[in-house]
Amino acid sequence: MRPQIVLFGDSITGQSFQLGGWGAALANNFSRKADVFNRGYGGYNTRWALFLLHQIFPLHGLMKPPVAATIFFGANDAALFGRSSERQHVPVEEYKENLRKIVHHLKDCSSSMLVVLITPPPIDEDGRMEYARSVYGERAMKEPERTNEVTQIYAKHCIELAEELSLPSINLWAKIQETDGWQKKYLRDGLHLTAEGNEVVYNEVVGVFEKAGVSAAEMAYDFPHHSEIDAKNPQNSFQIQCS
Amino acid sequence: MRPQIVLFGDSITGQSFQLGGWGAALANNFSRKADVFNRGYGGYNTRWALFLLHQIFPLHGLMKPPVAATIFFGANDAALFGRSSERQHVPVEEYKENLRKIVHHLKDCSSSMLVVLITPPPIDEDGRMEYARSVYGERAMKEPERTNEVTQIYAKHCIELAEELSLPSINLWAKIQETDGWQKKYLRDGLHLTAEGNEVVYNEVVGVFEKAGVSAAEMAYDFPHHSEIDAKNPQNSFQIQCS
Repeated sequence: MRPQIVLFGDSITGQSFQLGGWGAALANNFSRKADVFNRGYGGYNTRWALFLLHQIFPLHGLMKPPVAATIFFGANDAALFGRSSERQHVPVEEYKENLRKIVHHLKDCSSSMLVVLITPPPIDEDGRMEYARSVYGERAMKEPERTNEVTQIYAKHCIELAEELSLPSINLWAKIQETDGWQKKYLRDGLHLTAEGNEVVYNEVVGVFEKAGVSAAEMAYDFPHHSEIDAKNPQNSFQIQCS
Repeated sequence: MRPQIVLFGDSITGQSFQLGGWGAALANNFSRKADVFNRGYGGYNTRWALFLLHQIFPLHGLMKPPVAATIFFGANDAALFGRSSERQHVPVEEYKENLRKIVHHLKDCSSSMLVVLITPPPIDEDGRMEYARSVYGERAMKEPERTNEVTQIYAKHCIELAEELSLPSINLWAKIQETDGWQKKYLRDGLHLTAEGNEVVYNEVVGVFEKAGVSAAEMAYDFPHHSEIDAKNPQNSFQIQCS
């Protein structure tokens, strides 16, 4: 019944309903207006995401396609080959082509769907190593499995694709680094977002959505506001709404 | 595709995706397992809720019916007749019968649906008056529009109905008052929940759900965990999942 918004991505999307998460904040923003679906898959890269596409975004579903979707991959694709997370690594050219396939599929679902590309956040290599030591102690990796320099290349390709396809995008890699102390302020383990980092994503997403016309303020309530219900003859209020 | 959980209620449900909200926490708990839908309608009583039933819970929909639903009304029904919120007032016997109609409708949708009744929270009358003064100043109501004593009667009828229908229920009115200082600890304006109050609701709902067999731990992931994907031949992992 309500318009749908789908958040498609990796763990940074998957964890977006944790306390202070950007997904929950988005769901709250669209309260009584649209449903926000968390389709975040921790650890997934774009290569694996392709296998989910037809089930998450069916081409011939019984439901209306989503009005908007965020595509937020790259943090795992950018894991370095030859390091501890290499099984998640996807070469950057393939990453870009996989993103392109995802976008094309979504546009096949609905040419009017707002599709927003989000780059991976930056990497705080020290924070990443600290986190590994805190979890694995002596067995922790000796070299970071992701670097900020390599992740930047993925972010750049993501933004390039958005420009090629004339899609709105969020350069989270750059945005987060605009603030001094971003390493600890916005990232909690060198990669995943703190509550403040989630707030940055939320503000960016709402900003891009509103600019593209997907704005909670512009969307209708599904039923009358309680103050508009005729308390003596409530059926009148609901008949009007349904006609 | 995923099982659905619907939260049906008034503002205490509608606000449940705010920071620290019980709905967002529930969505996070069921991450990758089930979708949680916020169907909270601020200011609504059970009389008005009846008008929404067929649209929120269609009897002959294309979608599978929800696996679980919370019904969380009464805070507005219990507004006092003759006071400032009297338009929301519903007599307690009608409140109980309206709840019964809601339950019957949900069971008509799906006899296996887990339906959980939640009583309204208690009222902190001082907190309510303070809040009114902070918003309306001199024009604030001179007498509380809800009392804890009257709300207790609604809570009692809600629990009685749950017993009559052999449904699980949460006596939030009683539960919240078990803790000293509940007035400010759990309520922020004498009626609506603080983050800590939301945590109480979340814990109660998850507890009742698990006892009734709706447990995230027992539900399957919709797609393989990333650690189980065959990185060399990912298609194998996804074929297995779909078969």
